[in-house]
Amino acid sequence: MSITVVGSVAFDSIETPVGRRERCLGGAATYFALAASYFTAVRVIAVVGEDFSAAEEAVFTARGIDLRGLERAAGKSFFWAGNYLENLNEAKTEQTDLNVFSSFNPQIPEAYLDSDFLFLANIDPVLQKRVREAMPQARLVCGDTMNYWINDHRAALVEVLPAMDVLLINDTETRLLSGKQNSVQAARDVLALGPRALVVKHGEYGATAFFEAGAFGENVDARRAFRAPALPLAEVVDPTGAGDSFAGGFFGYIASQPELTRAVFRRAMFYGSVMGSFAVERFGTERLQELSREEIDARFERLRELTHLD
Amino acid sequence: MSITVVGSVAFDSIETPVGRRERCLGGAATYFALAASYFTAVRVIAVVGEDFSAAEEAVFTARGIDLRGLERAAGKSFFWAGNYLENLNEAKTEQTDLNVFSSFNPQIPEAYLDSDFLFLANIDPVLQKRVREAMPQARLVCGDTMNYWINDHRAALVEVLPAMDVLLINDTETRLLSGKQNSVQAARDVLALGPRALVVKHGEYGATAFFEAGAFGENVDARRAFRAPALPLAEVVDPTGAGDSFAGGFFGYIASQPELTRAVFRRAMFYGSVMGSFAVERFGTERLQELSREEIDARFERLRELTHLD
Repeated sequence: MSITVVGSVAFDSIETPVGRRERCLGGAATYFALAASYFTAVRVIAVVGEDFSAAEEAVFTARGIDLRGLERAAGKSFFWAGNYLENLNEAKTEQTDLNVFSSFNPQIPEAYLDSDFLFLANIDPVLQKRVREAMPQARLVCGDTMNYWINDHRAALVEVLPAMDVLLINDTETRLLSGKQNSVQAARDVLALGPRALVVKHGEYGATAFFEAGAFGENVDARRAFRAPALPLAEVVDPTGAGDSFAGGFFGYIASQPELTRAVFRRAMFYGSVMGSFAVERFGTERLQELSREEIDARFERLRELTHLD
Repeated sequence: MSITVVGSVAFDSIETPVGRRERCLGGAATYFALAASYFTAVRVIAVVGEDFSAAEEAVFTARGIDLRGLERAAGKSFFWAGNYLENLNEAKTEQTDLNVFSSFNPQIPEAYLDSDFLFLANIDPVLQKRVREAMPQARLVCGDTMNYWINDHRAALVEVLPAMDVLLINDTETRLLSGKQNSVQAARDVLALGPRALVVKHGEYGATAFFEAGAFGENVDARRAFRAPALPLAEVVDPTGAGDSFAGGFFGYIASQPELTRAVFRRAMFYGSVMGSFAVERFGTERLQELSREEIDARFERLRELTHLD
């Protein structure tokens, strides 16, 4: 079953305590697509500029990712520069050039219209809603957002949240969206805005899933939360894309399964954590480009061993 | 098998967003002893003043806790006042009166000398070491410490750490002791100081155990970390004593088992988390005074359900 993802494909210049990389391939849709590609077919809707070369294209095609929805526009690709010198958990943005992304108007190829799964990466909620409405056949929709949309585009964001089956955001975003400090109360508030499930990412402490009553029928336990760990890592080379890689592993695994059961949701959280842990081991998308399913499943088992009693 | 605990028995005045309590029974040894008493016999070594009345004594004796090592001195008991109005995760101290605790010189009753288990709660590391040396028969020693000892009494602390089989501290203390920010590197540094295992508490995110190579023989996997969750709570009434209650559940469960295996260590982490979650549901020790083993085991199962794939 294929996933269509809409979001950014970009170039990033990144500095971390380990070193610096100039203009490496990045963007939320890129990390998501690479991570998900180990589980299922992935189709990308994004826009790039004339600086997007055959080398970048090959990163996607080597993983079998469908780029028919990748628009090439006159100008430069989205560019972001930032560092993690003071805090590995939060990027300090040095520069953001939207470039061709500033007038992004997602075009959905005819061939994508049979995707059962849709991921709305972190873009303008107005565009998220438009893409969802243009793909009515998608039977499971996951999405992301960020502080900027929560603070400055709240009305538009609130309009798209009921269209999301699963919203994946971090602790800070959950509290910002809710206004509450207590994580359980904040999760309840966010669920009241419309998503059927909320996956809150805690960085090195993993992620917690909360469900609204009756979400996903009887198969997924609506009352109980589920917590997946993050793998304790002795070195984080570059945190960029960890959240999008989590989303790719999470949603990719769900799309690979015949139905969404409680067990599938839980395993998907573990696969999300696995892909996030790989992403941060090297700069940019380096590590995500060269994984094997065996490595992925071995790390899945490490997470089980990390958390299970027996 | 009995545990002897040495630490503070105190009065606390506490303010949280939920309300305020004046002079309730507190202290690390109190929380530890109450939590551990649901699993095993507990013996206390501490000092109190003339303000420690029959009512406070009854809180211990109702749980069968041995107070023969509780010294009564002229003057007032240790008193602490603090609030959690700005941050539920960190107390803001308003007042600390050491009172009789300032000249505490632990006396070990003859009857305690056969305790197999010893818990060194957060007190002067010089006293921790003295008590450990006076109880050579104790075959498993756990301990706690805090920022004050790490910063200002480091030499004495480093002397007692090799005497601890398990050190239980929080994230901030681990980083302070190590000087490293990365949690895995920091854990390795702390283990290099002598304890055979390190349990790092993450507040609402649970706790992680790290082991030195060969710790506890073949039974406990030396290479692999283990992470126990904290129960997501919609309301935290009073965080005071959560860490000591965790330690009480953790060590109490270990003391109740015939030997320390990998499975026992893991279950002990869960019981620690269970007792911490109960402690914060009410002010002071209120909740810890009235539990049943059935409630405890029901919550243990909730933690399993929160974290296990199947």
